[in-house]
Amino acid sequence: MGKVLQLLPSLALPLTHAHARYCLSRCSARGFRPISSTAATKMSTEHYMFGPYKIEPKEVFYSSELSYAMVNLRPVVPGNVLVCPRREVKRFIDLTVDETSDLWLMAQKIGSRLESHHHATSLTFTIQDGPQAGQTVPHVHIHILPRKGGDFESNDEIYDAIDEKEKELKKKLDLDKERKDRSIEEMAQEADEYRSLFL
Amino acid sequence: MGKVLQLLPSLALPLTHAHARYCLSRCSARGFRPISSTAATKMSTEHYMFGPYKIEPKEVFYSSELSYAMVNLRPVVPGNVLVCPRREVKRFIDLTVDETSDLWLMAQKIGSRLESHHHATSLTFTIQDGPQAGQTVPHVHIHILPRKGGDFESNDEIYDAIDEKEKELKKKLDLDKERKDRSIEEMAQEADEYRSLFL
Repeated sequence: MGKVLQLLPSLALPLTHAHARYCLSRCSARGFRPISSTAATKMSTEHYMFGPYKIEPKEVFYSSELSYAMVNLRPVVPGNVLVCPRREVKRFIDLTVDETSDLWLMAQKIGSRLESHHHATSLTFTIQDGPQAGQTVPHVHIHILPRKGGDFESNDEIYDAIDEKEKELKKKLDLDKERKDRSIEEMAQEADEYRSLFL
Repeated sequence: MGKVLQLLPSLALPLTHAHARYCLSRCSARGFRPISSTAATKMSTEHYMFGPYKIEPKEVFYSSELSYAMVNLRPVVPGNVLVCPRREVKRFIDLTVDETSDLWLMAQKIGSRLESHHHATSLTFTIQDGPQAGQTVPHVHIHILPRKGGDFESNDEIYDAIDEKEKELKKKLDLDKERKDRSIEEMAQEADEYRSLFL
């Protein structure tokens, strides 16, 4: 518990100054910010908390002052990501009005971009709010899953998969062990790919 | 399609003037309003749209200028309700910033109240956003389900149930037939019970 999770130890972000200016101008309206070149420099020291776990900035592809979005350790479908409040908050009701709005506006935007990016046609948004709803890490998080016709034999099977991944997530975070399922390079590439969607 | 759905044909709301004043003063902050005595009078003519279906106000136990919450035709668990934007919007991304915030602030508040009311310990919040995610009625809606330990043998079974109910929901709305599953009185009683939680 509380161990540093090193999922993506190195990832250079070759963003130009023009890119950075473009980002900053586009994201001021809602206070959201993609990982600009300025933020990329900051990324080497900044970190995000996910319950008791420290998340490396290299896993995070989008953030605001109140929320952040990260790639998933083992995605259920392509583009399955998590959106969390920055503040460590166990239950959804514990979020402030601003945090709640920011979290869902971010989820809405990210879901839409990832749906297009992965050529999907629908989205599943779920919060497992509390242990009896399947929450394993005591920090509010929205599961976003781009959906396609036939991605699962029956629609509800995706929830089996979410539950399974949720259990694995905690287990992996606790153990902080070598992952056999996804390479660091693959995960880094995904986060980098998603960052570019918000430039 | 487009038929008037008469789920709860009659329901008197014996709210006092004192109650009404109390409601109005409490709900001004976020623009939410429970069904006050004034609204109860209005209820006889007002209606809500849920995709192509007209929903009777008697099914609605909470509303704001932008969103409303209704009891479910056949709840998966006690307190399983739906929160929808008032505007007929098919996909989550189509909501405005204000609609998105309002919808989730309402869901947050209602979830919390219903969790306590039903002596539950967790909540499941889900949007099936688009047909490939299991959406049957083309109008954004959040499923809220109060959860308890052991309510389902395994957590993911609740999603099978949501999917099943989502299919039934459309079927029933389309057919507008006599329901065998829940009596009108039972549904009216539930909506009335929930209204009282927000006074």
